[in-house]
Amino acid sequence: MNGTEYVRQDRSGPARVVPLLGWLRHYDRRTLRHDLIAGVTVAVMLVPQSMAYAALAGMPPVTGLYASVVPLLVYALLGSSGSLAVGPVAITALMTGTALAPLAQGDPARYAALAGLLALLVGAIQVLMGVLRLGALVNFMSHSVLSGFTSAAAIVIAGSQVKDLLGLDAGRAETFPEIIASLWRSATTVHGLTVLVSLASVAGLLLLRRYLPKLPGALLVVAGVTVVSAGFALGTQGVRILTEVPGGLPAPAVPALGGSDMTALLPAAVAIALVAYMEGIAVAKSLAARSRQQISPNQELLAVGSANIAAGLFQAFPVAGGFSRSAVNFSAGARTPLASVVTALMVALTAVFLTPAFHHLPKAVLAAIVVVAVLGLVDRRSAVTAWRTRRSDGLTLAVTFVVTLLFGVEPGLAAGVAFGLAMFLWRSARPHLAELGRVPGTQMYRNVARYTGLVTDSRVAIVRVDGPLYFANAQFLEDRLLSLAEQRPELTALVLDASAISDTDADGAHALAELRQRLAALGVALHLATVRGPVRDLLGRAGVWQTMHGDGQVHADLTAALAATGAGHPNSSRR
Amino acid sequence: MNGTEYVRQDRSGPARVVPLLGWLRHYDRRTLRHDLIAGVTVAVMLVPQSMAYAALAGMPPVTGLYASVVPLLVYALLGSSGSLAVGPVAITALMTGTALAPLAQGDPARYAALAGLLALLVGAIQVLMGVLRLGALVNFMSHSVLSGFTSAAAIVIAGSQVKDLLGLDAGRAETFPEIIASLWRSATTVHGLTVLVSLASVAGLLLLRRYLPKLPGALLVVAGVTVVSAGFALGTQGVRILTEVPGGLPAPAVPALGGSDMTALLPAAVAIALVAYMEGIAVAKSLAARSRQQISPNQELLAVGSANIAAGLFQAFPVAGGFSRSAVNFSAGARTPLASVVTALMVALTAVFLTPAFHHLPKAVLAAIVVVAVLGLVDRRSAVTAWRTRRSDGLTLAVTFVVTLLFGVEPGLAAGVAFGLAMFLWRSARPHLAELGRVPGTQMYRNVARYTGLVTDSRVAIVRVDGPLYFANAQFLEDRLLSLAEQRPELTALVLDASAISDTDADGAHALAELRQRLAALGVALHLATVRGPVRDLLGRAGVWQTMHGDGQVHADLTAALAATGAGHPNSSRR
Repeated sequence: MNGTEYVRQDRSGPARVVPLLGWLRHYDRRTLRHDLIAGVTVAVMLVPQSMAYAALAGMPPVTGLYASVVPLLVYALLGSSGSLAVGPVAITALMTGTALAPLAQGDPARYAALAGLLALLVGAIQVLMGVLRLGALVNFMSHSVLSGFTSAAAIVIAGSQVKDLLGLDAGRAETFPEIIASLWRSATTVHGLTVLVSLASVAGLLLLRRYLPKLPGALLVVAGVTVVSAGFALGTQGVRILTEVPGGLPAPAVPALGGSDMTALLPAAVAIALVAYMEGIAVAKSLAARSRQQISPNQELLAVGSANIAAGLFQAFPVAGGFSRSAVNFSAGARTPLASVVTALMVALTAVFLTPAFHHLPKAVLAAIVVVAVLGLVDRRSAVTAWRTRRSDGLTLAVTFVVTLLFGVEPGLAAGVAFGLAMFLWRSARPHLAELGRVPGTQMYRNVARYTGLVTDSRVAIVRVDGPLYFANAQFLEDRLLSLAEQRPELTALVLDASAISDTDADGAHALAELRQRLAALGVALHLATVRGPVRDLLGRAGVWQTMHGDGQVHADLTAALAATGAGHPNSSRR
Repeated sequence: MNGTEYVRQDRSGPARVVPLLGWLRHYDRRTLRHDLIAGVTVAVMLVPQSMAYAALAGMPPVTGLYASVVPLLVYALLGSSGSLAVGPVAITALMTGTALAPLAQGDPARYAALAGLLALLVGAIQVLMGVLRLGALVNFMSHSVLSGFTSAAAIVIAGSQVKDLLGLDAGRAETFPEIIASLWRSATTVHGLTVLVSLASVAGLLLLRRYLPKLPGALLVVAGVTVVSAGFALGTQGVRILTEVPGGLPAPAVPALGGSDMTALLPAAVAIALVAYMEGIAVAKSLAARSRQQISPNQELLAVGSANIAAGLFQAFPVAGGFSRSAVNFSAGARTPLASVVTALMVALTAVFLTPAFHHLPKAVLAAIVVVAVLGLVDRRSAVTAWRTRRSDGLTLAVTFVVTLLFGVEPGLAAGVAFGLAMFLWRSARPHLAELGRVPGTQMYRNVARYTGLVTDSRVAIVRVDGPLYFANAQFLEDRLLSLAEQRPELTALVLDASAISDTDADGAHALAELRQRLAALGVALHLATVRGPVRDLLGRAGVWQTMHGDGQVHADLTAALAATGAGHPNSSRR
């Protein structure tokens, strides 16, 4: 039951396609015992959470149970992680509700069909990404974007639950200003007894988590409050309860909806597919590192995508690998997907036999579970770290946070990714330049702006360019180096230290050729030193390398380049 | 009259704001003679071209003259180039027509007002970019994008003139498929006499350009065909002629249009502002290099932006610095903006006194001028060079070309820029890695995949990462380096040559810290060598540098790093 204990995963033969077979090759009784304990532990946590997240997604609570049976079995068959716990999670539930509410026009049957279609789309996108090996796409969401997004989404989620906690007659609201306005308008409809139930639930959840963390807090609160609610008939006194919860498991069916719905859901499906995969892969990787297992990102996309397709076929809504449940699963000993099979069977038993027990469960309890679960997601420390490490990272986080809060989850995610990429591109369009001098008595060269006592020569400038030389910065570099040469009438040679030029393109090659000609017109020879292989290849294809090589202007390192310019000896000075 | 002769430009005092004052400080009679000759030469070229481009923009031909008076004077006052010839140019004329036609609903008065508003918007955007010093934004349009865009636009422009060349009754068409379809539908309305006029005009233009390049071909063809048209009364025989051309110059007026028109024109205005600036700055820079003058990109934005505002106020349409006219201006001796003042005065005299002479000018002649002018813009050589230099550059060019041809100029430009950036980002998300070995008998290290006979040590891997380490590739690098360590059980140290890591961010620092821990779990120590200053600073703010420095894991160069790992001596082998 600790991190050093691990189960070998065999990925040869048929296990390449169905990893579960690989796990079973080395399965033993001890592993089974761990998986049984972990599976039951997660199920006890998952039953109340999945119902709460279903409500957050705007779905009947029982569909949360549906989302926690077949999708888990499918993931167990195909997933490459031994500890990931798949099921409904808070953020994708919020995104699901946001996407569906405007399309469903208040019709619950249409809402459910749209949810299924959305899950199918999410699954199809994930499977497609896995087949095309596009898992790396999610890397364009930086930690800063994810952190700002998650914090804002957690606040929106918590805010959206306030109406249920207070028993208000308020409609669904998607953004923070809408939520505040909606709560303000309906503030007079606050229902005292519901507030009491909410306070008791929140207090129970927090106290149990704090003082008895080993106990299944959510389940105990659900059970306790349900007993009280049934005993005092709270449902007849204005407290909203679940009333009839249908029992049994759903039969598979393809949601019957048209192409226009599919088009309307597509942007949300892409966003959910990325976020759901991102949440799962992050936790799966960190757990796999601790148990020395291997995660295959593209296999994970196939597995979680198939789980979502199953969710779509079994009247559920999009699922993902959940962060907190996976951590519980891991620390309870889960090392193979058999744990998820145990969880799925437990949830199935609940759905078949125990739904009547939820009749008297107040909705406010589910809201309390959601609020307590997501408040831990607000991450102030990451914001401070990002801002301190790099202003642009902090700004990206802030932009994502504010846009998500004010305009919703998808605009927030899109704005964050776009802003982060724009900052990166803008920075790469104006790369750092360092003028170098020689460390006396050595062949090492350092930035004259950072070190003192370096040997320089007024006739030879040594400049290092830090970054790829490509279309967006080629003109900038040409202008900068040319104006440097123009400002120094004594200059006879400019040595470009290309060691940090990692890449180039046709525009970069063209700019180098032009720079060489324009410097020559000023009587300055351009030399290149330490050109990296890929850059050299491209300069060769553009014809620039041959010309410069023919003129003895390309060199293996700075020492050779300076020898060619004849610098560093007669006129050299220290600064 | 040659490139080495140059006029000093003084940019101190009030000349910082109005560069013309700086030119005049060093003005002499010789310069005046050159500017007079150049100004007249350009005017003779500009009068027929500006009328032809006005027709291309869907405006009355006389507005081409309007666009060539006040905007030129404004540019002469503010421009930093001594040779740029501003006025109507083919590509922005096409973009103007494309933007206005759907909004004007066939009402010529509304069309003219929209054209003025568009010029005002273009000017305002350019002035704003100049004030905010955003001239570098145009660098995101690579040569490949511009080349593909220009070639496709030239084909669309030439295609759009075919109906006038053949005298067809065809409507305006914006994309290549539309043009073909429109010509096909109206093919039966071809007018024989108009075809004859067109053939004569095209032949005249091409023959004069080929055999008498010093003569003003367009003007001669216009004069000759007009005389024939008047003598034989071609206008009464079905050849479309300009008929009444209003004389005089327009009074300034603000186009009276609402905010909704402004919103509708904004995307086109942004595209035209960028393209117009790009065309001008490119030619201005290349000419300035030859006359040893200095171009200030942000001053150019202010100048051409002000010229466009003047165009908007004087009933014209967007203008730009033209490529071919500027080259003519330069080779005729223009070295100061006084040449443009001369041109503007000549065009003004034409507008006031000579418009009755254009009564009998056939529209087909203007179409012939446009076609002959733009066919030289189709650039096959750039396409071949781009494809050969770098596949992604060739693809970018092809995407821009095809989208421009099939969907129009703005989608083409947007698709090209987006595709080019996506290729750059995708490449930077999977940076090149090189495993290094030591060149025997030296302290130089080279890529083992490119060189043979290098000294390596199976216990110490040296890996160079070529590219910035940032959010989009941090995970990729961590995974790649970790799997390298996992595949080599003998490994005790991994030395990361950071000399080509030009930049990093919070995610990069986090990935390094995580990689270090995960390698340590495998018994492999991570060492960094040759970390560039900006990267070191950031790792310091993230706290990674201090930890690694404390453990003796950061080194000035590879030699020091290898000494710290104890590698390269006992067990080393050649490969």
